[in-house]
Amino acid sequence: MRVFLVLLFGMGCIPAFSQSADESAIRQIYSEELSRGRSYQMLEYLTTEIGARLSGSPSAAAAVEWGRHEMQNFSDSVFLQPVMVPHWIRGQKEVGRVINSKKRGVVEMNVCALGMSVGTGPAGVTGNIVEVKTFDELKQLGEKHIKGKIVFFNRPMDPTKINTFEAYGGAVEQRALGPSEAAKYGATGVIVRSMGLNQEDYPHTGGLRYTLNIPKLPAIAISTKHADLLSKILKEEKDIQFYFETHCETLPDAPSFNVVAEIKGTEFPNEIIVVGGHLDSWDLAQGAHDDGAGCVQSMEVLRLFKAIGYKPKRTIRAVLFMNEENGLRGGLEYARLAELKKEKHIAAIESDDGGFTPRGFTMTATEPVRTKIKSWKPLFEPYGLSDFSNEGGGADIGPLQPQGVPIIGFLPDSQRYFDYHHTKEDTLDKVSKRELELGAASMAALVYLIDKYGL
Amino acid sequence: MRVFLVLLFGMGCIPAFSQSADESAIRQIYSEELSRGRSYQMLEYLTTEIGARLSGSPSAAAAVEWGRHEMQNFSDSVFLQPVMVPHWIRGQKEVGRVINSKKRGVVEMNVCALGMSVGTGPAGVTGNIVEVKTFDELKQLGEKHIKGKIVFFNRPMDPTKINTFEAYGGAVEQRALGPSEAAKYGATGVIVRSMGLNQEDYPHTGGLRYTLNIPKLPAIAISTKHADLLSKILKEEKDIQFYFETHCETLPDAPSFNVVAEIKGTEFPNEIIVVGGHLDSWDLAQGAHDDGAGCVQSMEVLRLFKAIGYKPKRTIRAVLFMNEENGLRGGLEYARLAELKKEKHIAAIESDDGGFTPRGFTMTATEPVRTKIKSWKPLFEPYGLSDFSNEGGGADIGPLQPQGVPIIGFLPDSQRYFDYHHTKEDTLDKVSKRELELGAASMAALVYLIDKYGL
Repeated sequence: MRVFLVLLFGMGCIPAFSQSADESAIRQIYSEELSRGRSYQMLEYLTTEIGARLSGSPSAAAAVEWGRHEMQNFSDSVFLQPVMVPHWIRGQKEVGRVINSKKRGVVEMNVCALGMSVGTGPAGVTGNIVEVKTFDELKQLGEKHIKGKIVFFNRPMDPTKINTFEAYGGAVEQRALGPSEAAKYGATGVIVRSMGLNQEDYPHTGGLRYTLNIPKLPAIAISTKHADLLSKILKEEKDIQFYFETHCETLPDAPSFNVVAEIKGTEFPNEIIVVGGHLDSWDLAQGAHDDGAGCVQSMEVLRLFKAIGYKPKRTIRAVLFMNEENGLRGGLEYARLAELKKEKHIAAIESDDGGFTPRGFTMTATEPVRTKIKSWKPLFEPYGLSDFSNEGGGADIGPLQPQGVPIIGFLPDSQRYFDYHHTKEDTLDKVSKRELELGAASMAALVYLIDKYGL
Repeated sequence: MRVFLVLLFGMGCIPAFSQSADESAIRQIYSEELSRGRSYQMLEYLTTEIGARLSGSPSAAAAVEWGRHEMQNFSDSVFLQPVMVPHWIRGQKEVGRVINSKKRGVVEMNVCALGMSVGTGPAGVTGNIVEVKTFDELKQLGEKHIKGKIVFFNRPMDPTKINTFEAYGGAVEQRALGPSEAAKYGATGVIVRSMGLNQEDYPHTGGLRYTLNIPKLPAIAISTKHADLLSKILKEEKDIQFYFETHCETLPDAPSFNVVAEIKGTEFPNEIIVVGGHLDSWDLAQGAHDDGAGCVQSMEVLRLFKAIGYKPKRTIRAVLFMNEENGLRGGLEYARLAELKKEKHIAAIESDDGGFTPRGFTMTATEPVRTKIKSWKPLFEPYGLSDFSNEGGGADIGPLQPQGVPIIGFLPDSQRYFDYHHTKEDTLDKVSKRELELGAASMAALVYLIDKYGL
């Protein structure tokens, strides 16, 4: 790129809404964040000093303390909501290998236990492999072909979907429900192709959900590269035996917390706007994009308001939810308490799709609310947010929806998310400081508008 | 991120244009690229097997051969356009240090020679430093305060600009023109703050342009982190001496080539649509984003047409321009030959802003042409391209503009570009395969529409 290209950006905003005042407040929010933002610095601490923080772990407890301490700097009050969370631990590193290929001998594979899986223990699981792409295929093979074997779910995410979350949605049932589906036909173990779009060396973990009253099979994810290799070997030699060994287990539920910080509203203190992300992460990752980014962006909304001297009319809450990854207990408890205390939430916004460059917002709300939010689109377009068309919100704020709360999701660009999701690659260096900051400022700008005009 | 969020994407496209046929052709282009695209594989070869490829270097020659060979696989013909290019070499690694800080002793700094700079030779340059932010400041200080000293240009890029190219445009005169400006007042050397938005350890190189009949001063870039440190030291101790040593030199012009591949049009073979990027890169970088990405995306346009069996009515040319970084000789020669041969170019498209997620296109064209291209926006929105509002094109295709050719720039997201630009960090691992592919498909889709409907 050369010297002379200067684009005139942000000049084409059509004033469909009246406010030069709003334009200027929003400009102030973005400028403050891009000049003196603290979101990246907070994320650096959370990911590198605390690191992986699966529910129930000591580092999740450390993250709670950090969140409470940090948010005291820029809120009127911080409080914790106690919640019991599942406590699953991985134990020693997993093993997965083809043990008797005539052509290749022993072939080691990159695998990891799926979250919430039972472990095999030291005896491991050994067996022939049946590769399938769908639950239908599994059903057609039936007990006759599956009993005593290891089922290998190998349907890739569809790369032609432009939104990668749609590709994820089309494949993830294999991970979430595959183990119980395979158990119905007498399988002894399950291997799932990692939820990634590239050829990768590392596996993606993520939660499975066992169906009640069906035997719990040990289940592992295999890297996409090794999924392809395993499939190739199976085409060459049908009879190969696979061995895997996992030492994960589920301990008794552990005490934990949502961390909630508030700036009290000056005019309507009983009307609450929530902005949040989830504090827990999978154990293999620093949880930089999932969801350290969403946490620090939510925290930053409060800090930004303090920094620019904006005193909200309504009460603004930043919530660091606990246990999104393997239980959603924090989100459920937050909604339960909101109902119990008859709190009036006028909007809930979540950032949990990564700290990537902003694209817009998704909404699950009534038509008048959607229309109102969409009318603000011209205020966001100068900052690159133009997609306000889709349904969606966030897992943690979802439980507020039955109470009639408008649910809003921050929508970043989705292309890189599944390169890192639930893997050892979800680290700070994969986060662009500016992209993270633009997301924080975008959320603050939306909260500002909701606070000013209501919903 | 959790299991159940599935966004319904790409459903909200308003058919302002008639074509389900176009929608389906464009869908086919994107699907082919995202499933079986070759752009990333080509970029991998160019960046890791060939690597840095400054004009006149052996690796630039290797890149020419590679481009010719590769494009023979998916075009009707490939030819080379000879062009003489500047041949600047860096020589041994640069040194830059504060040599006499009372408080800190010797302080080593991360520096590199600016492209096209004269070298200091083994004697180096030693002197006191005058820090300035603007040319006005320099002028006010005048010869009295500057003569015999080293001028340190330290105006940062403005982080509040949303488009980072605008921030670059606001700072880069320091690098491009600063050395000659400082020479007017008798300075002996120049240090320029690197063109980057973050605190970084590595310097950004990039071209300077000496003004005729003004002494040529040796000039270096300093990493942003060390620019801040140097500024801090200068506040503590005004009298410190700085030493730097560079061994760069400009050799006689060297022979090189633009690489041009064509698919001949079936109906209007004399009407040409050009799509291109520049093959040369700075010597410190693999040139993955700048501009390996633009090269392979342009090449991929031809490959995609072959792959989906689309036979263009007009002649489509992919051009790998030589010498964008320090001379633009390739772009100038291409335009000269086009005029000489009376070729009819109906559009020229360049990708030179990095292989990031697509945002839209920029245009420098007549109003009817702009209106026509903008009318296609609904066809691009499902793929994330919605910004068609700005002026712009590309350096290499710029020389075609005086011939009345509509000039179009592919517009990717700009947030990460200056983290890598002209540095050792511009490597393959900074490129997302999907983002690169979406860019290639976007360019192919635009070429398809221009080919089908004319401009």
